[in-house]
Amino acid sequence: MSHKIYQYKWRVIYAETDQMGVVYYANYFIWFEAARSEFLRAIHLPYRALEKQGIFLPVVEAFAKYLSPAYYEDEITVGLWIKEIKSVSLMIGYHIKREADNTLLATGYTRHTILDKKGKIRKIPEELKNRSKEYIYNKET
Amino acid sequence: MSHKIYQYKWRVIYAETDQMGVVYYANYFIWFEAARSEFLRAIHLPYRALEKQGIFLPVVEAFAKYLSPAYYEDEITVGLWIKEIKSVSLMIGYHIKREADNTLLATGYTRHTILDKKGKIRKIPEELKNRSKEYIYNKET
Amino acid sequence: MSHKIYQYKWRVIYAETDQMGVVYYANYFIWFEAARSEFLRAIHLPYRALEKQGIFLPVVEAFAKYLSPAYYEDEITVGLWIKEIKSVSLMIGYHIKREADNTLLATGYTRHTILDKKGKIRKIPEELKNRSKEYIYNKET
Amino acid sequence: MSHKIYQYKWRVIYAETDQMGVVYYANYFIWFEAARSEFLRAIHLPYRALEKQGIFLPVVEAFAKYLSPAYYEDEITVGLWIKEIKSVSLMIGYHIKREADNTLLATGYTRHTILDKKGKIRKIPEELKNRSKEYIYNKET
Repeated sequence: MSHKIYQYKWRVIYAETDQMGVVYYANYFIWFEAARSEFLRAIHLPYRALEKQGIFLPVVEAFAKYLSPAYYEDEITVGLWIKEIKSVSLMIGYHIKREADNTLLATGYTRHTILDKKGKIRKIPEELKNRSKEYIYNKET
Repeated sequence: MSHKIYQYKWRVIYAETDQMGVVYYANYFIWFEAARSEFLRAIHLPYRALEKQGIFLPVVEAFAKYLSPAYYEDEITVGLWIKEIKSVSLMIGYHIKREADNTLLATGYTRHTILDKKGKIRKIPEELKNRSKEYIYNKET
Repeated sequence: MSHKIYQYKWRVIYAETDQMGVVYYANYFIWFEAARSEFLRAIHLPYRALEKQGIFLPVVEAFAKYLSPAYYEDEITVGLWIKEIKSVSLMIGYHIKREADNTLLATGYTRHTILDKKGKIRKIPEELKNRSKEYIYNKET
Repeated sequence: MSHKIYQYKWRVIYAETDQMGVVYYANYFIWFEAARSEFLRAIHLPYRALEKQGIFLPVVEAFAKYLSPAYYEDEITVGLWIKEIKSVSLMIGYHIKREADNTLLATGYTRHTILDKKGKIRKIPEELKNRSKEYIYNKET
């Protein structure tokens, strides 16, 4: 079974560090979002367009495991895949690596519900299901 | 002529520090906003209520001068006053002090335009003018 | 068996919202930290002092479950308790409620390792163990 | 006299928006920093390396003027140049444009002092002066 991992690249900025000299833990969730946003764009379903159609994917669960610190100016890659895709929800997996030495810095996931403009649960768009097929991969994080 | 300075208190959290061991410069603008929000509430014009009436006060200019660093767990006070109030705009002054030793950490200002829901310039609400009177003070920052 | 929940209060600021009109998910982890910081202060072990003694409590796992959105100017309370305290690690539980209607907005936890200045694992300080006793409570989040 | 403007590109993420549906004002200062960081890297003086040599460039003044809002998923470019370079300080100018329609979204500047590890003022490194020469340009922001 083949599968793909979407890759999002970023270089750590000063704003993201804290006085321990490493990236502050909440910022990893912002990287998850940036990767998610670029992934949706890559499969031709930019989130801005989804919202205009009245489709919202709020986060209902978020988890991260921190294995090794990320430092200022580190080039990192967020790998993203779909852990689970159901009729009204979605689970996305992430791992973060430092480019220079390929160290695994963190793993995590976000779970999303599909909502309409009024906040009611709605079915996942077929396009989203179809276009993310190659990225479905129930890998352990 | 008497005047008042509105006081907003906060204790620096870890998230706000950077690897220099001090508060990251952009966070001062978040403190300005927190103070602004509490000030409007204190004069009985909470910003949430203003927005519901279709009144928006977007920032059109922001300035800060950093005099001395703020550290994790420092108790700080943001002093806030109105530097200028015109028919369609507003200028707010700020200074930030550390409680423990009364050190002046920063000064600054934000300039705001009054907009309606559609983004058109509108007149400043009379209530806002009246209720902020005591805080008008063209002090140098 | 009696136990205590430490309470940290906060009012949502504009900076914390996103264009969905609710608080952005990563910010809940910043609230967790703010609550953690105040809790340590409340039990007379402020984190700044711990760091000066060469004791660091980096987050090694973080989780949040989002049940209901938080809005701008909502008064929220973060309830905090110790889920688990071991020789070299610590697990802290959180729930977040909106004051106005007592709605449970989110639950979550953070897991921490105890490190020294050089990043080596060290034993949890006895004082931390003793002073947080009343807050130990293996409540489901 | 020829001069260069350093270009830094970014696509607006959800985290950066607020409930007005536009980018929150403090985030522009983070973009300034990201551009600054990449600029120093581009002239082969990455800030991480400067810090290791004991050279710090803390911000002592920051200003932004907001002309037009930035929206989620907008591709923006931060243009950066040196407004002033003195023996112990530095002033950097910025403008931010939206790629799609070339709209000028904001202009601004940051002023920096050169400090050593102990926080004492020191002379600007000759390399920094030499390598940023082409970018010196006293353009009005």
